[in-house]
Amino acid sequence: MMNISIPPIRREIVEQARTYIDELTKPPGSLGRLEEVAAELAGMTGELLPRVAPPGVLVFAADHGVTEEGVSAYPAEVTAQMVHNFANGGAAINVFSRQIGALLRVVDVGVAAPIADGRIIAKKVRPGTNNFAKTEAMTPAEAEQALRIGCEQAGSIIAQGARTLIVGEMGIGNTTAASALLATLTDEPLERIVGKGSGIDEERLQHKRDVIRRALTLHRPDPAKPLEWLAKIGGLEIAAMAGAMLAAAERRIPILLDGFICTVAALVARQFAPSVVDYMIAGHRSQEPGHSIALGLLGKEPLLDLHMRLGEGSGAAVAFPLLVSAAAMVNEMATFASAGVSTTGVKGEKE
Amino acid sequence: MMNISIPPIRREIVEQARTYIDELTKPPGSLGRLEEVAAELAGMTGELLPRVAPPGVLVFAADHGVTEEGVSAYPAEVTAQMVHNFANGGAAINVFSRQIGALLRVVDVGVAAPIADGRIIAKKVRPGTNNFAKTEAMTPAEAEQALRIGCEQAGSIIAQGARTLIVGEMGIGNTTAASALLATLTDEPLERIVGKGSGIDEERLQHKRDVIRRALTLHRPDPAKPLEWLAKIGGLEIAAMAGAMLAAAERRIPILLDGFICTVAALVARQFAPSVVDYMIAGHRSQEPGHSIALGLLGKEPLLDLHMRLGEGSGAAVAFPLLVSAAAMVNEMATFASAGVSTTGVKGEKE
Repeated sequence: MMNISIPPIRREIVEQARTYIDELTKPPGSLGRLEEVAAELAGMTGELLPRVAPPGVLVFAADHGVTEEGVSAYPAEVTAQMVHNFANGGAAINVFSRQIGALLRVVDVGVAAPIADGRIIAKKVRPGTNNFAKTEAMTPAEAEQALRIGCEQAGSIIAQGARTLIVGEMGIGNTTAASALLATLTDEPLERIVGKGSGIDEERLQHKRDVIRRALTLHRPDPAKPLEWLAKIGGLEIAAMAGAMLAAAERRIPILLDGFICTVAALVARQFAPSVVDYMIAGHRSQEPGHSIALGLLGKEPLLDLHMRLGEGSGAAVAFPLLVSAAAMVNEMATFASAGVSTTGVKGEKE
Repeated sequence: MMNISIPPIRREIVEQARTYIDELTKPPGSLGRLEEVAAELAGMTGELLPRVAPPGVLVFAADHGVTEEGVSAYPAEVTAQMVHNFANGGAAINVFSRQIGALLRVVDVGVAAPIADGRIIAKKVRPGTNNFAKTEAMTPAEAEQALRIGCEQAGSIIAQGARTLIVGEMGIGNTTAASALLATLTDEPLERIVGKGSGIDEERLQHKRDVIRRALTLHRPDPAKPLEWLAKIGGLEIAAMAGAMLAAAERRIPILLDGFICTVAALVARQFAPSVVDYMIAGHRSQEPGHSIALGLLGKEPLLDLHMRLGEGSGAAVAFPLLVSAAAMVNEMATFASAGVSTTGVKGEKE
């Protein structure tokens, strides 16, 4: 099993940050959530004046055997087509990564088709998972291998300079795997967990729920044995995302969560090391209904609620400038003392 | 009276943009609110592929005679002190303006104290308003002069290259003026409209409401006569902000709204030219309770809800990267056709 050691949040730096933020030239609390985020970033990084840029964006791509059940609005070939789109810079995550000056890497951890493109990091564990409605998606050893690849990629992009980690994914069928994983962590019914993913109709949605129900009955997956759990109903990209988050937390690097798949991967990471959650900030609330359930389990309130549901890391990338704002606030604003601005109440405060 | 001519939104470009956005490599609608914003920006600018950067940030500063009633948590001197903080680059709006690469101008339209600083644009109409709890805040001619200054500054910053307008303010006491203006536009009771501004206690909040109630009884201000209305209970910076918005809309420049004061200024602008509202996007929802009422009157849903309540344009500046994301999406993403990505449903869609 993997050996994970996550340092505790520096609570005393969080307190120092809160005190300092109240000295900045603004009414106390008037920058709202940005003030909380700045204090959280201080505790994560151990730095009173944290820096969050550049972010590192890791997009893990893999295919899902369960697509043969007809659970997605798109054919499985789209995974590989979108990987080529990432390589060419034309996908949403490319656009938003450029906007935020991110280090972006796209990693093939299990695309079914061969990907021969030097711009894509080749770490294929296997060409897609098995159809978990019929058999285990992969072996525990394969799940562990995907987790390790995630760890290594995060370690490497952090070594390259990333100060915040964003993990995204591409994998037709992966809302089905993520929904199955989430269903084993909560008593919520599948009707509330399973959504339309990339956009299926009501009939196919019902079918998707039936497929997941069948898989859960077949495998009886147990989250308390996380590698087996992942192997039975997970996905290669989901395992890699979880591994990347664990590696970031080990290095005190804040993790900005994307949408549904990413947040389920965060819950997977938590099964390996609960304190990884202390290094997570939720970027946005996805329209996928299971996302709110997953965020609730993590205990996170998202920064944005813009009805997005694309994945790829796009929601986190769009939210990233808010982390920049929070960090810039503490790094750059004047204090009342340094700016010579009065903090005393009006004359006759208690008249 | 001012001669304002606002061109209509280009509805056919909005439709073209929607069609084009559905061709980008993502499930239709999956970028949520960003897709709507991109289409709105196209209609405002008349450009299918709009550009929003650089933004122009105009911060108008002025004092309020009504502060002598003790309605604020801070002494009136803080207006001038904060203007110096703006000049030195240490305030929140400086920090966020740098983050978003904004053209930033701070304009003294009515600070009580002399401001002798070449970095501050000197357009003082008068050294603060009168106490509108006792007499009219200013003359209609002064209100018009402030409006014109706002128009001129917006015209000038747009000529300098600004593609989006953000207007902010500094003026101790200005939530009192904004609340009074808003109260004349709605049947909502003062208990729901008037909030704690920069942070007063419950007793002072009650007093603030009483002061406004007294002023409304004294002046019977009528929003249908907008110059007189502004003159009686408005503020010089509020008038200038309204003028700036009118000038931006005349030039097809999108206006990104800040919080409570800014949104009341938007309602003031609407009293002069209702279609100015078509050029507005709401940046965030302030914690000040009247802001939600003001946004409701404008018919706008904000992009962010981060419990901010600082003003200065800070909420709009923090929201601005979302406009950049929306514009970048249409300018930079590949289409399904150009990227060779399948749009056809899965095989057996109708099985």
